[in-house]
Amino acid sequence: MKSSWRENCGVFGIWKVPEAAHLNYLGLFALQHRGQEGAGIVSGTHESFWGRRSSGLVSQVFDREALNQLQGETAIGHVRYSTVGNQADKNLQPLWVQGEWGELAVAHNGTLTNAQELRLELESQGSVFQSSVDTEVILHLFARTKGSFRERIDATLSRVAGAFSLLILYRDSKELRLAAIKDPFGFRPLCVGRLQEGYAIGSESCAFDLVGASWEAELEAGEVYEFHSKGVDRWKLNSKAPRTAPCVFEWIYFSRPDSNSFGRSVYEFRKQTGALLAERDQRASLRADLVMGVPDSGIPAAIGYSQQSGLPFEMGLIRNHYIGRTFIEPHQSIRDFRVKIKQNPLPKSLEGKRIVVVDDSIVRGTTSRKINMLLREAGAREIHLRIAAPPTISPCYYGIDTPTENELIASKKSIEEIRDFIFADSLEYLSLEDLRQLTQGASVCHACFSKDYPSGIPKL
Amino acid sequence: MKSSWRENCGVFGIWKVPEAAHLNYLGLFALQHRGQEGAGIVSGTHESFWGRRSSGLVSQVFDREALNQLQGETAIGHVRYSTVGNQADKNLQPLWVQGEWGELAVAHNGTLTNAQELRLELESQGSVFQSSVDTEVILHLFARTKGSFRERIDATLSRVAGAFSLLILYRDSKELRLAAIKDPFGFRPLCVGRLQEGYAIGSESCAFDLVGASWEAELEAGEVYEFHSKGVDRWKLNSKAPRTAPCVFEWIYFSRPDSNSFGRSVYEFRKQTGALLAERDQRASLRADLVMGVPDSGIPAAIGYSQQSGLPFEMGLIRNHYIGRTFIEPHQSIRDFRVKIKQNPLPKSLEGKRIVVVDDSIVRGTTSRKINMLLREAGAREIHLRIAAPPTISPCYYGIDTPTENELIASKKSIEEIRDFIFADSLEYLSLEDLRQLTQGASVCHACFSKDYPSGIPKL
Amino acid sequence: MKSSWRENCGVFGIWKVPEAAHLNYLGLFALQHRGQEGAGIVSGTHESFWGRRSSGLVSQVFDREALNQLQGETAIGHVRYSTVGNQADKNLQPLWVQGEWGELAVAHNGTLTNAQELRLELESQGSVFQSSVDTEVILHLFARTKGSFRERIDATLSRVAGAFSLLILYRDSKELRLAAIKDPFGFRPLCVGRLQEGYAIGSESCAFDLVGASWEAELEAGEVYEFHSKGVDRWKLNSKAPRTAPCVFEWIYFSRPDSNSFGRSVYEFRKQTGALLAERDQRASLRADLVMGVPDSGIPAAIGYSQQSGLPFEMGLIRNHYIGRTFIEPHQSIRDFRVKIKQNPLPKSLEGKRIVVVDDSIVRGTTSRKINMLLREAGAREIHLRIAAPPTISPCYYGIDTPTENELIASKKSIEEIRDFIFADSLEYLSLEDLRQLTQGASVCHACFSKDYPSGIPKL
Amino acid sequence: MKSSWRENCGVFGIWKVPEAAHLNYLGLFALQHRGQEGAGIVSGTHESFWGRRSSGLVSQVFDREALNQLQGETAIGHVRYSTVGNQADKNLQPLWVQGEWGELAVAHNGTLTNAQELRLELESQGSVFQSSVDTEVILHLFARTKGSFRERIDATLSRVAGAFSLLILYRDSKELRLAAIKDPFGFRPLCVGRLQEGYAIGSESCAFDLVGASWEAELEAGEVYEFHSKGVDRWKLNSKAPRTAPCVFEWIYFSRPDSNSFGRSVYEFRKQTGALLAERDQRASLRADLVMGVPDSGIPAAIGYSQQSGLPFEMGLIRNHYIGRTFIEPHQSIRDFRVKIKQNPLPKSLEGKRIVVVDDSIVRGTTSRKINMLLREAGAREIHLRIAAPPTISPCYYGIDTPTENELIASKKSIEEIRDFIFADSLEYLSLEDLRQLTQGASVCHACFSKDYPSGIPKL
Repeated sequence: MKSSWRENCGVFGIWKVPEAAHLNYLGLFALQHRGQEGAGIVSGTHESFWGRRSSGLVSQVFDREALNQLQGETAIGHVRYSTVGNQADKNLQPLWVQGEWGELAVAHNGTLTNAQELRLELESQGSVFQSSVDTEVILHLFARTKGSFRERIDATLSRVAGAFSLLILYRDSKELRLAAIKDPFGFRPLCVGRLQEGYAIGSESCAFDLVGASWEAELEAGEVYEFHSKGVDRWKLNSKAPRTAPCVFEWIYFSRPDSNSFGRSVYEFRKQTGALLAERDQRASLRADLVMGVPDSGIPAAIGYSQQSGLPFEMGLIRNHYIGRTFIEPHQSIRDFRVKIKQNPLPKSLEGKRIVVVDDSIVRGTTSRKINMLLREAGAREIHLRIAAPPTISPCYYGIDTPTENELIASKKSIEEIRDFIFADSLEYLSLEDLRQLTQGASVCHACFSKDYPSGIPKL
Repeated sequence: MKSSWRENCGVFGIWKVPEAAHLNYLGLFALQHRGQEGAGIVSGTHESFWGRRSSGLVSQVFDREALNQLQGETAIGHVRYSTVGNQADKNLQPLWVQGEWGELAVAHNGTLTNAQELRLELESQGSVFQSSVDTEVILHLFARTKGSFRERIDATLSRVAGAFSLLILYRDSKELRLAAIKDPFGFRPLCVGRLQEGYAIGSESCAFDLVGASWEAELEAGEVYEFHSKGVDRWKLNSKAPRTAPCVFEWIYFSRPDSNSFGRSVYEFRKQTGALLAERDQRASLRADLVMGVPDSGIPAAIGYSQQSGLPFEMGLIRNHYIGRTFIEPHQSIRDFRVKIKQNPLPKSLEGKRIVVVDDSIVRGTTSRKINMLLREAGAREIHLRIAAPPTISPCYYGIDTPTENELIASKKSIEEIRDFIFADSLEYLSLEDLRQLTQGASVCHACFSKDYPSGIPKL
Repeated sequence: MKSSWRENCGVFGIWKVPEAAHLNYLGLFALQHRGQEGAGIVSGTHESFWGRRSSGLVSQVFDREALNQLQGETAIGHVRYSTVGNQADKNLQPLWVQGEWGELAVAHNGTLTNAQELRLELESQGSVFQSSVDTEVILHLFARTKGSFRERIDATLSRVAGAFSLLILYRDSKELRLAAIKDPFGFRPLCVGRLQEGYAIGSESCAFDLVGASWEAELEAGEVYEFHSKGVDRWKLNSKAPRTAPCVFEWIYFSRPDSNSFGRSVYEFRKQTGALLAERDQRASLRADLVMGVPDSGIPAAIGYSQQSGLPFEMGLIRNHYIGRTFIEPHQSIRDFRVKIKQNPLPKSLEGKRIVVVDDSIVRGTTSRKINMLLREAGAREIHLRIAAPPTISPCYYGIDTPTENELIASKKSIEEIRDFIFADSLEYLSLEDLRQLTQGASVCHACFSKDYPSGIPKL
Repeated sequence: MKSSWRENCGVFGIWKVPEAAHLNYLGLFALQHRGQEGAGIVSGTHESFWGRRSSGLVSQVFDREALNQLQGETAIGHVRYSTVGNQADKNLQPLWVQGEWGELAVAHNGTLTNAQELRLELESQGSVFQSSVDTEVILHLFARTKGSFRERIDATLSRVAGAFSLLILYRDSKELRLAAIKDPFGFRPLCVGRLQEGYAIGSESCAFDLVGASWEAELEAGEVYEFHSKGVDRWKLNSKAPRTAPCVFEWIYFSRPDSNSFGRSVYEFRKQTGALLAERDQRASLRADLVMGVPDSGIPAAIGYSQQSGLPFEMGLIRNHYIGRTFIEPHQSIRDFRVKIKQNPLPKSLEGKRIVVVDDSIVRGTTSRKINMLLREAGAREIHLRIAAPPTISPCYYGIDTPTENELIASKKSIEEIRDFIFADSLEYLSLEDLRQLTQGASVCHACFSKDYPSGIPKL
């Protein structure tokens, strides 16, 4: 249960399907886990765009009347968790500009590492910025390019560094175009599916299942799908990267287990992390009575652990399904209220037991500490915490909202010190070597575990 | 995943704890699964009552301001799913009346089987009914009694038949009293816990965990806890029942797995149902590749099945956590939309597999049919559906909102016909004998499986 | 501008017109000035009633969906300002009860002076009260009667004393009936109009204008219009009053100027009060430069004053039209904020002027004091306040929410002392003799000016 | 009662007063009549800006929590009725941009006549526009200037033509500045007042009354008040206009009667228009029984007419004060519903009378026609409509949302034809000559009556 490791965004788009905005809304709903702060959809024809963006969950932002106003058979949408920019409504996406030339809307998942330099440069040339999101530089750069849509996209994106899975909706007086673009490193997932006579594009395949689209392909790093009136063109961005770098944390934590991200089943990947952890414990002859996962992200790894080790899988903690975003605490303090409002231990099953608890990561350590205390109060005799990832020692600059390095407990404390702080009897992480084994030698981004940043880190 | 088997209500009360209404709100929040239609709290001192009831989820009905207006250190609350009475606001509980003599508020979980006769009788004596809920007869009967609070409760409840776990808050000009009462059959759960210098009372123990109360006791059938200014009196209702009849469906479906209901861990009970199903399949040499549960209520039984059979437990279906009560469907039909908006299969894990699917019951069969179709589309080769309860052949008259007998698929079709209808390769239920074994000979209510109604059925 | 003299209620009903609830909503909207705290409509056929009641303005309580759920061609509605009972939702009207015999809904404008005695008596017979409004005794009394609808109404209303303009909607399994009833004194207005093939009934004729009904008659004191499937019966209540007593304050303040209440144009009545005040000032040779009214109720009297005296009528104060019910004050105090948020003086027109200000009454004196200060700051040289009614020295017990006698400034202070308190240069009221002249000898209720209570005052 | 002649905007600002956002909210509330579509406030210190903009009335857009988040002692705000740009939220003001250099927020009342040309030019230089409001060009122009704040404002505003009363809030890392600016023609009102140790600036003086500010000055045409940490500088824009051109329609219709706009009492101006109309009727020996105004804007002119002519002033129409923005019409049509929901005639006072009705203008003629029909139904024998302005024959390009010339009835029909269309017995307008007499030879803008556009009309 992550308390401060948050995906920045999810994007979803529809090309040439009736009720595009409505389907886009469903797609965003399926991607709600990627951002709960705000949502937006811009729909369009070659004659006009329509849009709505607001703070709140997808189901709060849109009602039937709002969706009906978003006309056309094409739309792009966005769910947001802020990585860059504060929470003001002006930072909601899709960003949307208009001019004599037409209209442009952009939905972005990722983070640009040179946005600040570009912003200063553009400001010195007279551009004004109406939001504090990095994505806005893309609009300004695009506006200063010439040529065909493809040339302008290439010219624009050759300037930006970092992570970007983008949906760009563009119209001039003659035509409507939609481009789905993944940066040359391929940091963030982006998939294409077929839907009726048109297409769906989205951060994760689970969104296709809900709208009834059939999965077609994960975009390659640097690839562009350009949808236009005559069909679809696939091409590669001019700018190249030295290697691919899909975010390994999508598999570990962000993507929904029912998604297929970067070509792998997220659920299966997580089960394999659990199996690796179990193998090591078997080698170490760990004696335990049961294995449980911290809901929800730790569950698949716990299942994998159970299948590998033969240790019985148990639920251990029950998640409360009715939590809204705001919850009224009494004035009197209730111990561990914020953890308890989300989940509750199963006392009978834990009493007197030596339990293996599987979680996906430890950020500051405070939540793990509270969960372990709850489990001990519920009767757990021993707690062996297993983390289905290596220690997170460094922030992400490619699209995830992480604490600063200083706040990451693993950047300052040894594993033994962490174990002591969180009241665990033992603590094990996956190693970077395990991760390499799991990713089968693929070139991935694991900078948060290794400080090996494929695209550098922001200077400003 | 039940589509039409709904608990009617949950009750929660606080006796003599500061911020009683606020703690009551948390207690109701933990009982939200027992009723999502409306919620209410009445708080009180010996001088006044304060109340709020409204349609909606607990978190929608109450905000900080509303809670602050509910004064005093004592409160009773209710979450509602209608069994009797339509959905009008006038049917929300706690019911609350006032007179020269003081005030009375009642929160009820259960159904009275002779409410209609009593209503006619009371109307013939001049009583007017302002709601259509059965609970209202209790107020009218109470108003016509004389004597001490205990005598009046005994006189009142000797008239009513059926299921009632009640919280009654009463004040006259001198004193405030709270009674927690379970009917002589003990149909519905009701527990007492200690909280600070006072008490918490609630339908399920999971609510105690959230407010920090320590579990003390499940009320016995026919027992009353009467809280007053000088302490607590425990006594038994005058009216007696020939046997106890705790609802076995609380264990099977209604109670949260982290609750201890009728003296048993709900989670452990469910695991045992799964184990029994597995034993039978082992005897029959069923060959399968994995076992999964239908979220959420089928999961513990699936875990029990896995542990007994050695078959790997897998997630199979991923539940969507962001569903609100209203969801906007597009005009174009999306196949199985209402099932898909709630859960999505894990394709990779199911592909080509022979899967055992564990669910808690089949009501009309339509939902099971759709889930099985989703699983087959995701690649399942064989589906062996196992129901962790006997076939439901008859409605509940003791507090659960069930379809009529005619709508229950098992009342009309053979198991083989049901199997055929829901597209399963095989279908097995628990037998009544299995249930007896699980309940260890205790006298329980299993009328929905057996038509053996301990307290008769309504005449009118 | 009254700060604490509030009409309790308005009632409106529709008999046999399609979209009855919708038309009822419009009628209540036109009567919104009679009660802004809450509103409700119960519609019905001989088979069922439908209802909605909630706190808030009419336009907030009902939306299209809510109106669509209120079926049938007959409805009764209510806007409420509490005279009796606190502001809880349970006190909203129409009250609505149901039984084996059918359903009954009641909307009441007025106050029953013996409600408390009746309540005690009914409670001693076993009745329970779910609200704290006096109207509820009518339901309980009715439930204990036998015979025809007319006999039951007569039997019920022979028991109650005080003011009641009632709409009673009743159905048994065979028939739907609607009774419009005015108490034998005829305290509160109630009119009947024709609308399409059916009828509209309402507290004031202005509501007929909006729905397009044509005025037919003001009910006589003690009269009943009984609408049923075969037509309309008009009859008189058995209980008689020694005299009629229409509330003179309806003409002075409550009714809308565009209404015709108790057979007189409210606007014309108010103009005549102003003319009488002017005549007296003419006899006293008052020298002034202009006359203005305190918006909105003082305006017609000021126009009458102007026409009689020849003194120019000016606006003087501009009313702010965008005030909602809640307004956020800054932490820093703004002097006279609550008066200023409602109206603002016209400085140029007042500067150096001797002004006659006409208002309808002085309650506590604090608002008049603040308005006079605002006018003086805006430059008024002299302020001659004229009150278009006699001094209010005693509370109303017949349907108006007034301060206690002790709070009424005219009950404790002489006119000279009031003049001094409110910073006026002179102060004149209408005399009781003036009022008699205006009402042309008709038998009216002027108890708030004279303590002559036609129906006594409550004992309890 | 105008149905389609709408002020575009109102602006209000606070400089260096505690709770600036809260006071700004009150100021905007007093200016609500200038724009009911949306509202916004941006507050600031030299370190940060905070903002909130949303659709709806001022009282809907802001609650206490929202105001508390707008920190600092300085703020600018805006109420909007769209003249340029559609109703999307992205068009709400204050516009607000930020950069490495600091932040800039702009609130604008008026319309720029060369915005489209400037937009094309800026776009050709790489600027991107995120709204469709003309005001946005000011931000882009400003961003491309260099020098001191004053130099940048001068450079920016020397490029724009048309009407602009502006509030510009600017901060760099060192200082916060607020400029209040009126265009060289002085089309729209803008006033400065003193408030505590600081200042209030607003479109109309009525807003000062509410917040307790004392009126200091109307800005001169082309004048700038620049507030900064060391005090206030007053200076004139470099760009000059050939003459001043205050909008005469502010006096006739837009400004609140309790405001002092362009140095004149709005209420007194309106009375004078009525007096002129009366003089003409006296010369023509018109015989009538009473004079009334169409609420609210026709009332002061009717009072002036009454005082000049000696004809009694009567209310005639009663305005409904509880109208919200949306109103649910029944499916059955109610004749003249939209007029009746707003106002209702006073039948008794009109019956058999020859009435002079004073209104401020006729736009399409349809509303006048309906009002006249209502008055006739209420019994009026003759209707002599007097318009307190010349015929409106041409659209406004300087800040008012008017129909196109083609929709203006006076651009196509003769006065006699209009009279016939609206069912009046006679119809008279003010003449341009009357207007000149009223404005005492001042150089004003009366282009909507004369097509004499002081600053030209937009080319694009």
